[in-house]
Amino acid sequence: MSHTDSSEVPTLDDIRAAATRIAPLARRTPVFTSSGLDRLSGANAFFKCENFQRTGSFKIRGASNAVLSLTDEQARRGVVTHSSGNHASALACAARHRSIRADIVIPHNAPLSKRETTEAFGGIVHLCEPTMAARNAAVEALLKKTGATLVHPYDNASVIAGQGTATLELLENYPDLDIVIAPASGGGLLSGTAIAALALKPGIHVFGAEPERADDTARSFRSGRVEPVIHQDTVADGLRATTCERTLGIIRQHVTDVLTVSEEEIVATMKLLWRYLKIVIEPSAAVPFAVILRHRGRFAGRRVGVLLTGGNLDLDKLPWQT
Amino acid sequence: MSHTDSSEVPTLDDIRAAATRIAPLARRTPVFTSSGLDRLSGANAFFKCENFQRTGSFKIRGASNAVLSLTDEQARRGVVTHSSGNHASALACAARHRSIRADIVIPHNAPLSKRETTEAFGGIVHLCEPTMAARNAAVEALLKKTGATLVHPYDNASVIAGQGTATLELLENYPDLDIVIAPASGGGLLSGTAIAALALKPGIHVFGAEPERADDTARSFRSGRVEPVIHQDTVADGLRATTCERTLGIIRQHVTDVLTVSEEEIVATMKLLWRYLKIVIEPSAAVPFAVILRHRGRFAGRRVGVLLTGGNLDLDKLPWQT
Repeated sequence: MSHTDSSEVPTLDDIRAAATRIAPLARRTPVFTSSGLDRLSGANAFFKCENFQRTGSFKIRGASNAVLSLTDEQARRGVVTHSSGNHASALACAARHRSIRADIVIPHNAPLSKRETTEAFGGIVHLCEPTMAARNAAVEALLKKTGATLVHPYDNASVIAGQGTATLELLENYPDLDIVIAPASGGGLLSGTAIAALALKPGIHVFGAEPERADDTARSFRSGRVEPVIHQDTVADGLRATTCERTLGIIRQHVTDVLTVSEEEIVATMKLLWRYLKIVIEPSAAVPFAVILRHRGRFAGRRVGVLLTGGNLDLDKLPWQT
Repeated sequence: MSHTDSSEVPTLDDIRAAATRIAPLARRTPVFTSSGLDRLSGANAFFKCENFQRTGSFKIRGASNAVLSLTDEQARRGVVTHSSGNHASALACAARHRSIRADIVIPHNAPLSKRETTEAFGGIVHLCEPTMAARNAAVEALLKKTGATLVHPYDNASVIAGQGTATLELLENYPDLDIVIAPASGGGLLSGTAIAALALKPGIHVFGAEPERADDTARSFRSGRVEPVIHQDTVADGLRATTCERTLGIIRQHVTDVLTVSEEEIVATMKLLWRYLKIVIEPSAAVPFAVILRHRGRFAGRRVGVLLTGGNLDLDKLPWQT
């Protein structure tokens, strides 16, 4: 499998191979349940706690699969990426594990904690304007200078396969789930989730969850082409990226629907999850359960795997504090 | 074992019996580790996550052991207690499980979330002034009125035995610990911890951890008698109770030392634990690791079991936010 071929789509075998490859770096995260939250939602939720994952998010799965798939020759020239945060620190961590250089382009409005974590793992941070055009230009310049390999945060078959390992674990532990729901941003996690879930259990339903204010995946899912992101600010800072041909193709093939929620619902749900589960999750991670609460009819009475994607945020000011 | 005899001290057998008795109500909580926190402390810490316990704290262990030890005749007349919060909701939860009435005296300055949780479990809350005298007077009045059984938050052998089950689990999972450290308030958890740890592993050291501003256990440990609590306000709202003859006797017999930390250290450590472990713990739960960081020489290089006692707090204003 070449991760540079933009039409390449990983299979369940690729996801299984990724699980073996990343085992030295990625943790098998626990799954939490809460009878209190089940009473509120009417569903039976199984929370896959990727906030406890190394680097604080699921992103280490895809990043380490990509870095560990490089040839020695490629690895020597290092890796480059752009990311609003969690992929950045994950790639830095994976690169350090292989003792190679990682240059990371981060929009200047990303949470400070994510930049600091990237630097703590030895990643070299380059700030840019918060647009896809600015991200891409900065990455191109770095690639020219270093000859490094781009590890795109989602438009990369190795990354998608790595992200799918979370659902592999979830369905190994809970094979009788009816539904799996994951946030939609660039679509790397959602497409890896869908490939793993449908291959392991053909009758299962996979849903995408998105903020109304960053609903490009929902619109693209309906129109059938990559709709431009309308740059609005959402509290779910991890979900501001745009989908791509590859991830949208997988999502349209395998995903049942992409559902959206308001900013208020995201914040209220985040607080609810902190209070009931006693865990620290970032706003983006609250979006799937917010969807379950809002679109109750789609989930009530079902056994739902919920990907809690990460726990990195600035603790000095929480979203429910005005 | 009679829980009304004030000289009664539970044994390891009592703690084992409690573990069996409370199994339908109390969870076997997970143990977390963090290489990042170990680098900061120089110790090897094993965090027993009682914040994930039913009702959000270890208190369900003692409360349910006491409630499930009542005769049917006693149970019919209900239970009464006083508590700054976590024992309150735990007793209400245990009472509901046995379908009996629980009257709870709570000081009016206890966190609102703890009162609400008690009421959510069906406990009948009676507010009082935040002094031991006011607590005791309110409890006496209720006992007279209802003929119920007092389930004291710590001066009760069944409660102490129940609290000891956390350490039973911890040492079953990690038999090679050198040290176990728990917060000191009334001393129920610390004495139960000490009995379990020393009986299971005679060479182990047990430490108590206390805020400087509520250091009555440290002073009592040194003087050999129950020193009066000097009522100062500490951010560790779960650690404001005073020790008693029974718990102090156990602590002086089994505990190596009781060490204190400042308010600033508690708050900084709490934030550190949230950030590294991605878990919600209340200020009191941060006190043991704050002790490990401050009294480094006692813990560096050792394998230390740390009781993270609870995760109940008002999320609207966090202690590090001024």
